[in-house]
Formats: sequence, C-alpha cells, structure tokens
Amino acid sequence: MNIHIIGAGSLGLLYAGKLAASGCRVTLWCRSEEQADKLRASGITIEDMGQHQVVDAHTFSICSWSSFSESGGAADADYLFLMMKQQGIEEMATEMLALFGQDHRRLLCFQNGTGHLERLQGLLPMWTIYAAITTEGAKRTSSVSVLHAGQGTTTIGKMKPAGSPFDAFSQEDHEIELVKQLNRAGFEAFLSNEMEEMIYRKLLMNAVINPLTALWRIPNGELLSSPERVRLMRQLYNEGIAVYDAGGIPYGSGLWEWIVSVCQSTSGNTSSMLKDVMDGRTTEVAWINGSIVRLGQKYGVSVPTHELITQLIEGMNT
Amino acid sequence: MNIHIIGAGSLGLLYAGKLAASGCRVTLWCRSEEQADKLRASGITIEDMGQHQVVDAHTFSICSWSSFSESGGAADADYLFLMMKQQGIEEMATEMLALFGQDHRRLLCFQNGTGHLERLQGLLPMWTIYAAITTEGAKRTSSVSVLHAGQGTTTIGKMKPAGSPFDAFSQEDHEIELVKQLNRAGFEAFLSNEMEEMIYRKLLMNAVINPLTALWRIPNGELLSSPERVRLMRQLYNEGIAVYDAGGIPYGSGLWEWIVSVCQSTSGNTSSMLKDVMDGRTTEVAWINGSIVRLGQKYGVSVPTHELITQLIEGMNT
Repeated sequence: MNIHIIGAGSLGLLYAGKLAASGCRVTLWCRSEEQADKLRASGITIEDMGQHQVVDAHTFSICSWSSFSESGGAADADYLFLMMKQQGIEEMATEMLALFGQDHRRLLCFQNGTGHLERLQGLLPMWTIYAAITTEGAKRTSSVSVLHAGQGTTTIGKMKPAGSPFDAFSQEDHEIELVKQLNRAGFEAFLSNEMEEMIYRKLLMNAVINPLTALWRIPNGELLSSPERVRLMRQLYNEGIAVYDAGGIPYGSGLWEWIVSVCQSTSGNTSSMLKDVMDGRTTEVAWINGSIVRLGQKYGVSVPTHELITQLIEGMNT
Repeated sequence: MNIHIIGAGSLGLLYAGKLAASGCRVTLWCRSEEQADKLRASGITIEDMGQHQVVDAHTFSICSWSSFSESGGAADADYLFLMMKQQGIEEMATEMLALFGQDHRRLLCFQNGTGHLERLQGLLPMWTIYAAITTEGAKRTSSVSVLHAGQGTTTIGKMKPAGSPFDAFSQEDHEIELVKQLNRAGFEAFLSNEMEEMIYRKLLMNAVINPLTALWRIPNGELLSSPERVRLMRQLYNEGIAVYDAGGIPYGSGLWEWIVSVCQSTSGNTSSMLKDVMDGRTTEVAWINGSIVRLGQKYGVSVPTHELITQLIEGMNT
C-alpha cells in the first residue's frame, strides 16, 4: 500500500514513521524545504513508552510542498492523509490539491471542526473524501522527532459524493486493506458508519475543553476543580446541544459524561489550544467554537457564549 | 488634623507616609500584627521619581485591626480613610466599624465599584460618608515600602444621608481643611459635586480595561493593538452605556475617548486585575463587572458580555 502524508507535524511524523517502519510505502510532504532536508538527514525519531525508535530516511520518501504539482500530485497514492491543522487547509487545498480536482484520489482528513470536508468535496469533485478521527496523543519535540504520548484509536468514514454526508458502512477491499495496514503499523483503526456523530461529539468536546483551558491556562483536569468552572463548561455544552438538536445533528448519548471523563483521563494534559496560546500561535478556535457559531447561525440558535469565547481567544495573540 | 488610615496596602502606605511627613497626625491601621511590627521597626519607605523617602515610625501611629474596638474606634479622628480593596470591606465593616455606627465619624471610601457606599451608609447611619477617587499610581514593593508610580488626582464628594447619593458642593470648613492638608502632603485633591458621574466613569473604564487585560495577560496599551481587541472593549462599553442610560446614571461626555486615552497613557502598566490574577489572588471583578451586571438587573438591561467576563475571571483562580 502506498500512502502519502501531507503535513509533518506531530501526527504526520507519527503516522509516517510507524507506517514506514511497518513496511508501507510512505511519502511525507513537508511544508518547508528545511524540514525536508533535516528529515532526509536523520529520519524520524519516535519516542514511545520511553523507547526511542529511529525510522531511517531511506525507508520512506520526503518531499516538500513546492514540488507537489510538478511531481504529479501524488497520483500513485492509494491514500492521501491530510494531516495538518485547519489553518493550513485553505491555502494548501486551493494551491496544491485543487489542480488535481478532476483526477481521482482518496483523501483522509484528520482535522477537527466541521465545514472543511464539504469545502474539500466541492473543490475536489472526483476525489473520495474520508473523515478520520484520531485520539492518538502525539507531541512534536523537534522537526524530526515526536513523542507518542498516548495510545488512541483512529476511526475512518467515507463521505458520500453529495447529500447526506456519510456513507453507510461500505467496506470496499481497499478500505479494509487500509485498516489492516494501519493496524500493522500499531494504530488501532476501524471503519465506522457513525462518523458524523463522532465528528460532532469531538467538536463539542473540543469546544468545551479547549478554549477554557486556554483562557485559564490550566491543564484539562483543572476544569473540574470548581463549580464556577464546571458551570461555564456546562453553558458552552448546553448552547452546543441546542444547536445540534435544532439542526438534527446526531451526537449519541452520554456526551456530557464523556466530556467530563476526557477531562479526568487527560487531567495533566495541556490542550492544543493552550499550547498554541502559550507559543504565540494562532489557535484553531475559528474551526472549533467558530464551527458551533456558524451552525448556530445556520439553524437559528443563539450561541452567545461560543461567540464571545471565540472573540476572546482570537484576541489573545494578535 | 488627625487622620486614621485603615488598610496598609499600596495606597494606605503612600497616603500615610506622605501625610505624616507633611505634619499631619496619622494613625495607620494594619490588618496583620506582623506588618504593624515591621512598620514600627522601619517606618514607611516611599520611592518617588527615583528618590527614596523614609518616613520614621515615630512620626505616626501604627495599630493593628484587632485593637480597633478596644481603642475606641478612632474616636479622635477628624477623618477615617478606608483604603482597602472591596474584598476586605464586608468583613471589616461589619466587625470593626459597625460597632460605632451610632457615633459620628467622617469616612472617606477609596474603593472602586459601586454599592459599598450605600451599604456603609446603612451600617453606619450617623457617620458622614465620602467617596474618594484617586488616580495616584502606587505599587507596594514590600510590607513597608511603596513605589509612587504616577502623580494623580484625588477627588472627594460627600454622600447625602439618604436619597440622591451626592451632596451639592458643600465645602464645610473641615472639608476645605482636609483638601489643604492633602495638598500640603503632595496630593492634588479637590472637592467635587460630580462624584456620581466620576464614580460611574471610572467603573466602566475599569470594567472595560481590567478584565480584558487579565484574560489576555497584556499591559493596558496592548488592548488597542488589534481591531478584534478593540471590538470586545467596545462591546463591554456599549453594554455598560445601555445600562447607564436605562438607569439615568450620569457619565458625562467623551467616555469612550477617555477610556482609550487611559489605555494609551498607561500603555506599559499591568492592571490591578491582571496583577491579582498573576499572583493567584481573588480579583475585584465582582465589584467591577459584577456591578455592571447588578445595575443591568436593576434596570432591566441585558449585559451578557459582562456576565460571561465575570464568570471567566472568577474561574481563573479558584
């Protein structure tokens, strides 16, 4: 199986390294030529449970985005993994991928938030778009090394070409092969026909946990340390659920309990949004709470807390 | 003139030191016996424009709160200056001052926010209550030393015993004498018959500047560094003005421009609320934005941004 991974952040390095080490043909696309050179020189180092695994550079291919179109846009890939944050998608998708919108490719999108799947579908009408949700814990420790901080799961679902977004369980041969390949590489992966529910569950979980940890600069578990904090979590949660209910969006049962349990099980973790704030980077709030705001507008539900929280996070690093 | 100062924080030390040095009889009431002992040993050091002035302990009296009632509740004072933050007032007022509610004293209240003046008036029916607004910049650098960071003004107005809160310009002899004494000590002080307007102008200024600087952890001037930030300031401002208008609260003209100019003129300053947050202390948000929320309830005006901001600040250190 031939997999192209676009984006060499924490998840990109983790998946590229582990897939290459398991015998999969991997091409890793980096944004910068500088990172590509470093990877060519030293390969990828994965720190996992205190063990250091170095994946030699000769076991996979390394390219930089600038050569994507001239090298044919990953025409040989069985799957493209899109492993960058939301911020990168607009630019990258319009400049790099859209050129090949009339070809056929299979694209797995690992982003949080919502809306980007539909936009990519519009931009790449002949491609098959998959959503992937991973709970793998990964932290990039340098441009060539990643810490595998926690074992998670990777859930994959195919979008329909149009209309209702997710296909019923299809299980084509190549999809089953992809899941096997991921499992051989050490990822617990499976196909799901409840992707929409999972996406919206994760969206609201992120919309409740991330901005509050970023504003208060606390690890996830500290959210539960006072009634005042839990009350604000609940306020964000209730607004989100009102939107989901108005739009007929599926979110299953026990969502609040799951969010609380995620705070507990990741109690010492720094959320990605807090990390971005502390490092002075733009956060993903526009794709997390901003998604709830846009859904609220679409379904005529007022979400003042998500609106203000989005503004406050956007005001942090400007 | 005999002045008792209750509270030995930054403003308490500055006023006690400068008044004592100018020949006024001063008694400084400290919350802790420990601070009282240190002050008795070393006096007050005031750093002003790079100069260090040490006010010897024998030039003023130092007591701790625990002896307030047994020593007669400052019966000999021409004026009591109440120079503690809002947080301290409830406890101190009910435990210490209320015992002497049937006596006559003159009390100058230096707190931000609103509501405490009316409560003190209820608790101390025979006292004359003054509001004082100072823009002196003071920063406590130890329990016995203070940095005079900026020259300001001190405006004083007398509350009526009941009904409309502020007296028209009264200028009794002892009030004129107080102002003279403050001026001799180096404070630019005056009596005002527009105290209500000043209180509400300062309240909204604090409600716009302080919580945002605390949430974003930026000095005052950085509030103006992006349209996103100014938009949120304006949102807080507009909600406040809607409340003031509904309640017939006077705030004069050019209030928004004044708030912007304060951000500019204090651009490098850390707001008191940000300082409290960084030091892990309870902030004054309940008396600043919380006052706007209570006024909104009273006058039937919705202030969702102040409500949420109050919750967010209260969630920071819990």
